[in-house]
Amino acid sequence: MAKEVTARSENYSQWYNDLVVKADLAEQSAVRGCMVIKPYGYAIWEKMQSVLDGMFKKTGVQNAYFPLFIPKSFFSKEAEHVAGFAKECAVVTHHRLMNAPDGKGVVVDPEAKLEEELIVRPTSETIIWSVYKNWITSWRDLPILCNQWCNVVRWEMRTRPFLRTAEFLWQEGHTAHSSAEEAEAKANEMVQVYANFARNTLALPVIVGHKSPNERFAGALDTLTIEAMMQDGKALQAGTSHFLGQNFAKSFDVQYTDKEGKLQYVWATSWGVSTRLMGALIMAHGDDNGLVLPPALAPIQVVMVPIYRTDEERAAVLEKMAAIKAELEAKGHSVKVDERDTIRPGFKFAEWELKGVPVRLAMGARDLAAGTVEVARRDTLTKETMSLEGIADHIHGLLDDIQANIYNKAMAFRDSRVQKCDSWEEFKTEIQNGKFLLCHWDGTAETEQKIKDETKATIRCIPVDSYVCEEEGKDIYSGKPSKCRVVYAIAY
Amino acid sequence: MAKEVTARSENYSQWYNDLVVKADLAEQSAVRGCMVIKPYGYAIWEKMQSVLDGMFKKTGVQNAYFPLFIPKSFFSKEAEHVAGFAKECAVVTHHRLMNAPDGKGVVVDPEAKLEEELIVRPTSETIIWSVYKNWITSWRDLPILCNQWCNVVRWEMRTRPFLRTAEFLWQEGHTAHSSAEEAEAKANEMVQVYANFARNTLALPVIVGHKSPNERFAGALDTLTIEAMMQDGKALQAGTSHFLGQNFAKSFDVQYTDKEGKLQYVWATSWGVSTRLMGALIMAHGDDNGLVLPPALAPIQVVMVPIYRTDEERAAVLEKMAAIKAELEAKGHSVKVDERDTIRPGFKFAEWELKGVPVRLAMGARDLAAGTVEVARRDTLTKETMSLEGIADHIHGLLDDIQANIYNKAMAFRDSRVQKCDSWEEFKTEIQNGKFLLCHWDGTAETEQKIKDETKATIRCIPVDSYVCEEEGKDIYSGKPSKCRVVYAIAY
Repeated sequence: MAKEVTARSENYSQWYNDLVVKADLAEQSAVRGCMVIKPYGYAIWEKMQSVLDGMFKKTGVQNAYFPLFIPKSFFSKEAEHVAGFAKECAVVTHHRLMNAPDGKGVVVDPEAKLEEELIVRPTSETIIWSVYKNWITSWRDLPILCNQWCNVVRWEMRTRPFLRTAEFLWQEGHTAHSSAEEAEAKANEMVQVYANFARNTLALPVIVGHKSPNERFAGALDTLTIEAMMQDGKALQAGTSHFLGQNFAKSFDVQYTDKEGKLQYVWATSWGVSTRLMGALIMAHGDDNGLVLPPALAPIQVVMVPIYRTDEERAAVLEKMAAIKAELEAKGHSVKVDERDTIRPGFKFAEWELKGVPVRLAMGARDLAAGTVEVARRDTLTKETMSLEGIADHIHGLLDDIQANIYNKAMAFRDSRVQKCDSWEEFKTEIQNGKFLLCHWDGTAETEQKIKDETKATIRCIPVDSYVCEEEGKDIYSGKPSKCRVVYAIAY
Repeated sequence: MAKEVTARSENYSQWYNDLVVKADLAEQSAVRGCMVIKPYGYAIWEKMQSVLDGMFKKTGVQNAYFPLFIPKSFFSKEAEHVAGFAKECAVVTHHRLMNAPDGKGVVVDPEAKLEEELIVRPTSETIIWSVYKNWITSWRDLPILCNQWCNVVRWEMRTRPFLRTAEFLWQEGHTAHSSAEEAEAKANEMVQVYANFARNTLALPVIVGHKSPNERFAGALDTLTIEAMMQDGKALQAGTSHFLGQNFAKSFDVQYTDKEGKLQYVWATSWGVSTRLMGALIMAHGDDNGLVLPPALAPIQVVMVPIYRTDEERAAVLEKMAAIKAELEAKGHSVKVDERDTIRPGFKFAEWELKGVPVRLAMGARDLAAGTVEVARRDTLTKETMSLEGIADHIHGLLDDIQANIYNKAMAFRDSRVQKCDSWEEFKTEIQNGKFLLCHWDGTAETEQKIKDETKATIRCIPVDSYVCEEEGKDIYSGKPSKCRVVYAIAY
């Protein structure tokens, strides 16, 4: 089965596409750029949601739900925002179909034209701030800390499953504060939540930093990002958190009375991660045999494959497996016994490898007699025959080891490809070799743009918690003075 | 605060609208017919989702996600379905906005017209069966048991929060089977899941039954429903489960090879409940003081209000409350200590009553000295002073009592308003008094329609598990022979 997956060394991009389909994660639908997330893929997304949602709630955030549609006029209110967003989006113009006059199928009823067109939300700042206006009058109403899990639509021309799709699933947090300091602190807090989630759950090392003004979210004063390295050395922006200043409050006239009785505009943040994280997960850890799932996100953490020749052997092995399963479930692990008897064990091994199940147990009559079981790790592709005694405890610990090992492996890979660079010639070569280059930058959009035009590399971030390089130097391109290095890479 | 809520006896409909807004559940948005679900309302919906999702998964159902948009041509494929659905819906015709030529705001780019219009899903049978076609080739691929939690849009002309909104949240299950029997069994199983959820979690008695052919879902061979009685005696359809036969399989050409190697069309079910359940919850249990939440759905099960005159008293009471909170949380309960010091206790009492919190504890310095606490039940509006000893155990049991009491009260109310009726004159009077009438029906759509035209009453269902009256008789309207009674009521 894994033979159907293209090798990474051969064609990384094709390997990714193959994996998405063969591991039953997602597929294209009949609607341009919209994917179907299949049950196995969705189960991983549900685990991501569940962990993140718990982390949000611990910071005092509550979930809510705002409308799918945004009146077109709202997009005209925040000038910078509309410039960044209002281009490619799905526009609802009518509210009725009717039977076709020729009797064949249905057509749009021309009588049912909306007075004002509705935009399917590409992001919800405008509709949410139009609502916050009603919720906020006094300092006592602040802060407001809301998040919503929902679908959004951006009419992307080139789409790839999970990485860039016309419709995608995400969460968007929108907070309202009485001071700039509090809002900035919240934007920082949330990017750290994302970084912790990436590191601890996705097993994905990330660099936290500020976007350059050029790469900021439309309407933001500051955009914080987590940037991860994929196995081809490209960068993937995995989550962002924005300090929006008072832009949306001013556009929607959201003011509060402060403790001194004075009217003040409200300060805002927004922050989001999406099903793009699924793409990050696949590309950061997968190998030529398929997906490699960190135990924290694996819908099935342990799969058991029985090996037998007779019905008696089958029954005996399955009985023992049921006992191990019960023990593991009692420890909070998700376990599947693959009882299918129309498929041979070797095929099952390949299928679960492809799907990235962290631990595989295989057991036959001989194992049973000897009191042993074969334990295979997905991350290292190693096998070991072990005693059945204390096997549940062993696997419990093994899952932790695997989670840590996947992270450490990704970290070692990334660190081996991050380097300081002070020569423009070296830059041009190394950036094509899939490196993250720490370079001095003169702080101008002009230099940033020229480097992008020549090499496709962009400033991924000005790092704040890893590779912080505050030092005097000269811009790698313009030679002008610089006070710190930034991270350059070619990005997804 | 509760004074702002209209009394039920005065205007039940206004009472409902008041409650939705005053209890912070939802509000209208700037988009016609689309509501904002506020954090407190959404927290209740999240509890519903979590319980239902667990129940679905126990039956082997997996979650997945299918596109928001459906190509217009798909609606022409299933003739009956299009007749029932394709009328009022949101139609996407363009994919781009552009700056207005006059420089003021944005307009739809006329160049960006879609080749084929896209419909925002009013329900997903068509898009899902277009996908199932790729998933199914052999009997080994069946059954497929998928569910999705998502938003859907139906362009309703008259909307009411939760009960009928243009956009709403729901789950829709879609299953594919190799035989009619298996599909019918699944449709039955799922309506029973809904009935159990309604009874055990919503504390809502429901009648399970078949819809008359007239009232079936567009494209279904059979529609099962759960019907609940609201406090005004009207019926509310709270969930449906459909046996779809082979209609969608034939429209989308979904066939499988059976064990004998013959091609067969696949059998289908679909089933759903929506945020309408929030409306049922409010209308079934609320009173003139506000919401009454069953503990199983209450985001806050126990609220504690400290009473004090000095900072010292406050500190002592809060310390004790923190200890009780910890004990209750250890038992799995959600507890809030209302520490706000800008609001008086009486106001807090009214607010939490309005929000339907099942148990309220109040404690002052005198209670502390006496080792007592005041325990108030929301369902009965009774108060009792109790010893602090064993208080957590007591409340743990009390929450179970409240859950049972709310159900029993609703059940007694309903049973008092369900009656057999054999006289057309009596029917006309009693149906206006908010009764569920068990009447003989001749099985014709004609009689059903005439009764609806004259009285607005509809056949809510042909019951299968409560009030089943299989007996010979004469149709209440036509006098023609009948073999069983059906449930008539005026419905939401």
